[in-house]
Amino acid sequence: MDKTPPPILAKVVPTTLDGFMELLPAEQILFNKMLDVIRETYELFGFSPLDTPAVEKLEVLLAKSGGETTKQILPLQKEGQALRFDLTVPLARYVAQRYRDLAFPFRRYQLAKVYRGERPQKGRYREFYQCDIDIIGDGQLGLINDAEIPSIIYAVFQRLGFGPFTIRINNRKILNGFFCSQNITGEQQKEVLRVIDRLDKIGKNGVSQELAELEVPEATISKIFGFIGITGKNSDIIEQLKGLGIADETFNAGVDELDTVINAIRRFGVPEENVAIDLKIARGLDYYTGTVYETALNDYPEVGSICSGGRYDNLAECYTDKNLPGVGISIGLTRLFSKLLEMQIIKTSGSTSAQLLIIPMDDQLDKAIEASARFRQSGISAMVYSEQAKPAKAFKYANRLKVPFVAIIGGQEVSQGKISVKNMMTGVQQLTTVSEAIELIQHRGEG
Amino acid sequence: MDKTPPPILAKVVPTTLDGFMELLPAEQILFNKMLDVIRETYELFGFSPLDTPAVEKLEVLLAKSGGETTKQILPLQKEGQALRFDLTVPLARYVAQRYRDLAFPFRRYQLAKVYRGERPQKGRYREFYQCDIDIIGDGQLGLINDAEIPSIIYAVFQRLGFGPFTIRINNRKILNGFFCSQNITGEQQKEVLRVIDRLDKIGKNGVSQELAELEVPEATISKIFGFIGITGKNSDIIEQLKGLGIADETFNAGVDELDTVINAIRRFGVPEENVAIDLKIARGLDYYTGTVYETALNDYPEVGSICSGGRYDNLAECYTDKNLPGVGISIGLTRLFSKLLEMQIIKTSGSTSAQLLIIPMDDQLDKAIEASARFRQSGISAMVYSEQAKPAKAFKYANRLKVPFVAIIGGQEVSQGKISVKNMMTGVQQLTTVSEAIELIQHRGEG
Repeated sequence: MDKTPPPILAKVVPTTLDGFMELLPAEQILFNKMLDVIRETYELFGFSPLDTPAVEKLEVLLAKSGGETTKQILPLQKEGQALRFDLTVPLARYVAQRYRDLAFPFRRYQLAKVYRGERPQKGRYREFYQCDIDIIGDGQLGLINDAEIPSIIYAVFQRLGFGPFTIRINNRKILNGFFCSQNITGEQQKEVLRVIDRLDKIGKNGVSQELAELEVPEATISKIFGFIGITGKNSDIIEQLKGLGIADETFNAGVDELDTVINAIRRFGVPEENVAIDLKIARGLDYYTGTVYETALNDYPEVGSICSGGRYDNLAECYTDKNLPGVGISIGLTRLFSKLLEMQIIKTSGSTSAQLLIIPMDDQLDKAIEASARFRQSGISAMVYSEQAKPAKAFKYANRLKVPFVAIIGGQEVSQGKISVKNMMTGVQQLTTVSEAIELIQHRGEG
Repeated sequence: MDKTPPPILAKVVPTTLDGFMELLPAEQILFNKMLDVIRETYELFGFSPLDTPAVEKLEVLLAKSGGETTKQILPLQKEGQALRFDLTVPLARYVAQRYRDLAFPFRRYQLAKVYRGERPQKGRYREFYQCDIDIIGDGQLGLINDAEIPSIIYAVFQRLGFGPFTIRINNRKILNGFFCSQNITGEQQKEVLRVIDRLDKIGKNGVSQELAELEVPEATISKIFGFIGITGKNSDIIEQLKGLGIADETFNAGVDELDTVINAIRRFGVPEENVAIDLKIARGLDYYTGTVYETALNDYPEVGSICSGGRYDNLAECYTDKNLPGVGISIGLTRLFSKLLEMQIIKTSGSTSAQLLIIPMDDQLDKAIEASARFRQSGISAMVYSEQAKPAKAFKYANRLKVPFVAIIGGQEVSQGKISVKNMMTGVQQLTTVSEAIELIQHRGEG
């Protein structure tokens, strides 16, 4: 390739970078509908929007995180600048920086793209949407907030309608306390938690092997499996945990917290069947200090975790002396969307935002434009096919877009002060006034 | 600084990079309202959403542009990757790449951030929102589209309500043809157009001087001023242009196009007073080949151009052999927003998305949570003050957020099956049922 000079008018091959999702219009419309449901639900619960820059100072991004994160970051050429890898670190920086201007508890949502430098693999993206909510307290933040978060997630996934789902809950204090009681502490504990977090991926044997490599004694390994294998109804699990007779203070504080949170979730109207204590959930990041969440679709376990989060004692400790505890959760929408689409759990419908395409005939463009304005005044998204082309081409266009309605305005229609409206789904065409057509289309929107 | 080691627990100072706008919640809510109006209006006209990656291959970004653009680009450390500097180049790449999957005319909108490497100055941002619409044809695209674009911009700014505005229109062919008739061609012509585009900034003397530096003869300079000084009603300007007796073919084609577009704009219902031919508008980018637009607020000329765009004969010529003409326009929302806010043309109201804050008293948290669910079912954004704090603190919180309504649920209210609702604007408090409160709040939303 190096030896043949390119032709002078060589085209640049139009491609995107690996690991960057880019959708066709029909997919984008579907994606945006999900984004809208999430935003509307977050706002309904009184979360306010935030829109931090996509580029942050590297020192801000790396203030807390260890070597793992450094590898994942996507730096700019300009020294000391990089793309954010999540929305939590910028939030921590934001609350520390804007502390005096904020009212606490500070409830914010942010739906935005984040960036990762890691090698793209199937289902892993270098640019993807996170849809985050967090509640940040000033000095303190009641446990009741840990119970409200699942109720918001419940509302989101009820509205999204991907079938039954389970919000799995654990508490890091229970894990930390249990491992301390087994003499697994410090760095070893962190490593062990990371291994356990991967149980779904590497299986029981894999975990067993990796724990052995971390020099966890065999007897302890089987105790660990006994512990994370505790199952049953939520109240039963709490009883079993209390009955283990573990004297560790952190452990018992964790059990009490979990008990409180599980009971409070019920008060927020989340059905028992949507919430399950799962002692396996560790959440790799050492961020979290209390409640941790993961959510999965019951009918599609292969989709994996669709949203996760938890409680952190001190969100912004790298940036301020203020103690700002918080709790939050994040939906990784890009991965979720692409999985759901691939598995045909969701399906695209049309390739256009328009509800109506108006096709003028017999030089009635002006009448078509006039009508389009009337449709829009009633909130109906309408466009006019204004190209000079045969009607067949216009109909082909309508079919490719899968626009729900087509209106035809020709000499015959104009002479009667009407338009012909065709429902493209049913194929039914009728001659009506614009007002009648507006009702027809609006009615369909409700049906 | 190098000699004193930092203290071990040194905090990272929480700051953002220069040139990156970051808003407080009240400002963000206001900003998002503008974004929503723009999106809703674009969709109402049948434009479909597109969301291309923020990172593109450098060769894609630089395919067309010259040295000017190279300096403006924000590259990643990873070779051959950079942040997009506008949404038009990614669109060109997209339509070339996805040609077979798209139906033409392809109408898309994209509201997204773009990035510039230039040194930040006041009012100039390194990250800012562009709100673009474009219509792309396959092989051809009728001039009627050049007239539809201003009608959409008209609808957007009518809804945004910043007072009277003027969409100024010109046609590049008129300028090119005129300059050719004055023997100003090729690179010199491009330079001259760039100078004229800066008339508002550097004044008549500045233009005069720079034109002289470009070796434009003095007699020609005064002809140029005579030409761009042609004013009057749109129809008068067209008549004057036709009367100049310039034999240049391009010039006359441009005049015909402008005549057609100006007449067609009227058919789209845009009042005459909102559209003005302005022969000074050149638009620096050599992208544009026909119609060009700029829009300004009549009462606030210091805000400058609030949206601009135009027609390009062949959008994607760097990426494909297909001929894809287009016309589009872009609102630079970040700059517009910050100017309007600074000049107090727009004002923030509250710091929360919530319409209602429910404050439980006398341990009535459960009743508060229950009521909040009922408000949300009616579409009212509600949150519960769940911190264990004195009522005064809760009211201070409500005041800082400027939430429109506060509800109090204490023992007294519960015993009567009611809640106390306070309109925080009027100060009026009343004891009502939840249903009555819902109507009260919804009614206020309409008022």
